[in-house]
Amino acid sequence: MNAADTVLAESLDGFAASHADIVVLGPERKFVRRRVPKPGKVALLSGGGSGHEPLHAGFVGVGMLDVKNYEGDVMNFEMAAEIVGREVRTVVTDDDVAVETSTYSTGRRGVAGTLVVEKMVGAAAEAGRDLAALEALGKDVNARTRSMGVALTSCTVPAAGKPTFQLGEDEMEMGVGIHGEPGRRRVPLAVADVIASELVQSILKDLGLKRGRPVLLFVNGFGGTPALELYLMANAVRRVLGAAGLTVARCLTGSYVTSLEMAGCSVTITALDDSLVALWDAPVHTAALRWAM
Amino acid sequence: MNAADTVLAESLDGFAASHADIVVLGPERKFVRRRVPKPGKVALLSGGGSGHEPLHAGFVGVGMLDVKNYEGDVMNFEMAAEIVGREVRTVVTDDDVAVETSTYSTGRRGVAGTLVVEKMVGAAAEAGRDLAALEALGKDVNARTRSMGVALTSCTVPAAGKPTFQLGEDEMEMGVGIHGEPGRRRVPLAVADVIASELVQSILKDLGLKRGRPVLLFVNGFGGTPALELYLMANAVRRVLGAAGLTVARCLTGSYVTSLEMAGCSVTITALDDSLVALWDAPVHTAALRWAM
Repeated sequence: MNAADTVLAESLDGFAASHADIVVLGPERKFVRRRVPKPGKVALLSGGGSGHEPLHAGFVGVGMLDVKNYEGDVMNFEMAAEIVGREVRTVVTDDDVAVETSTYSTGRRGVAGTLVVEKMVGAAAEAGRDLAALEALGKDVNARTRSMGVALTSCTVPAAGKPTFQLGEDEMEMGVGIHGEPGRRRVPLAVADVIASELVQSILKDLGLKRGRPVLLFVNGFGGTPALELYLMANAVRRVLGAAGLTVARCLTGSYVTSLEMAGCSVTITALDDSLVALWDAPVHTAALRWAM
Repeated sequence: MNAADTVLAESLDGFAASHADIVVLGPERKFVRRRVPKPGKVALLSGGGSGHEPLHAGFVGVGMLDVKNYEGDVMNFEMAAEIVGREVRTVVTDDDVAVETSTYSTGRRGVAGTLVVEKMVGAAAEAGRDLAALEALGKDVNARTRSMGVALTSCTVPAAGKPTFQLGEDEMEMGVGIHGEPGRRRVPLAVADVIASELVQSILKDLGLKRGRPVLLFVNGFGGTPALELYLMANAVRRVLGAAGLTVARCLTGSYVTSLEMAGCSVTITALDDSLVALWDAPVHTAALRWAM
């Protein structure tokens, strides 16, 4: 970085310049919006802080989000909805099965499953679905989606300048959140198959899927884990899902919902049906997700 | 991982399962090839070890590579060309300006610029250009392309189990290679603008571009550096290029040519002309690069 207090501004300038065909940066860099708005379409906004890139700015574009707002979170969105005087509906994700409450949330946390909700609702909004239907879809996708993660290292928030938490060389944090907040428990390092089994079993216990059910598998890197290891985890997770009689109908592997340079990954599973597969497959053209266009 | 000696095999299984629409894995996992070969097209093969993912397996697909071979490097490719008895031409990349020779190469190293060569030659091969023309194009793109990188941490090769090199908390390695081999010199940590300036000036000194010249800018993460920081670096590099009177006509930012979880990045610059822009923009459909299709 150059200075802790300009990290986000400089990164956003670089992002907007790199993807000028897709996005524009709002005044005072308070938001990133789709370059070419689509008239008549329900606008999809996602909010929250930085450090989780490409979430959400990397998901702004055709077929996904219209706006990523950096100023504020759930409470601010509720206030904004009251002020703006237009019809607004809110979908709050809570896909993390690791803990019931955390230092960053009352109730379950929204983690990598947010990408799945944003992709599917984004596709439906692009297709012209109305506000009430999109709210119902978002809540449905969220309810079908569960995640759990593991961290092998902490991240260091630039303004803090030191690791958010301390993990020994031979330890890992099971059920970690994407703000580096504590998970379920700190345990000795285990091999990939053991980690995959615990993550998937925790998710499946919560999701209660019948054998033969098609699922979306999303193996998400937290920022400091290389692709080689993420694909190895995807393979380990597939074995566990196969043993549980589930079919991976769609999958995504990569670092999309991150905690700066934290090493580790999360597993997200969404119970699919044909209409959700179609929404997942629908064209998307954003900085971080791009297919079928 | 599960075990050091199965890391690549398990990762390749996960990769092939995740991208079954694009690639198939060869017998004994010795190579990854495009699922649907295109008859009559010159086949593009790239070779080398693992640990640099998504290079090259993530670049196999329509508009880029036909095959990524994991068994062997330059020498083995020359031997294979003799054995196979078909017409074979070889392009060896050497885009790294940092050092003249290294522990991994005689002569300059091929680093992230390899992606640029593979994308442009891949587009030309897809369009039906013949073998001699593709060889000439590959050598031309390589000659127009220069890179230099910086590492903030070492990576740890699974089989070795310890960091390839030791860097103090307040040190960085300027001109590092993608095997973690030494660069130009080890220096105290500096801010992003200072790093960007040194990387770009070293490249421009070597490339000798006139003002107003359009360039491709590729800011590549080494695996352990988050997107937030890569875009910040892209922004810093753009300022240096702007001051040098160069125009960033195309750009790419992300972790594409990595050294496992090494923290750091490289800057690659290619001098463009209209025909190269068209090759860069041409449709590509691979695991790691996908656009315009």
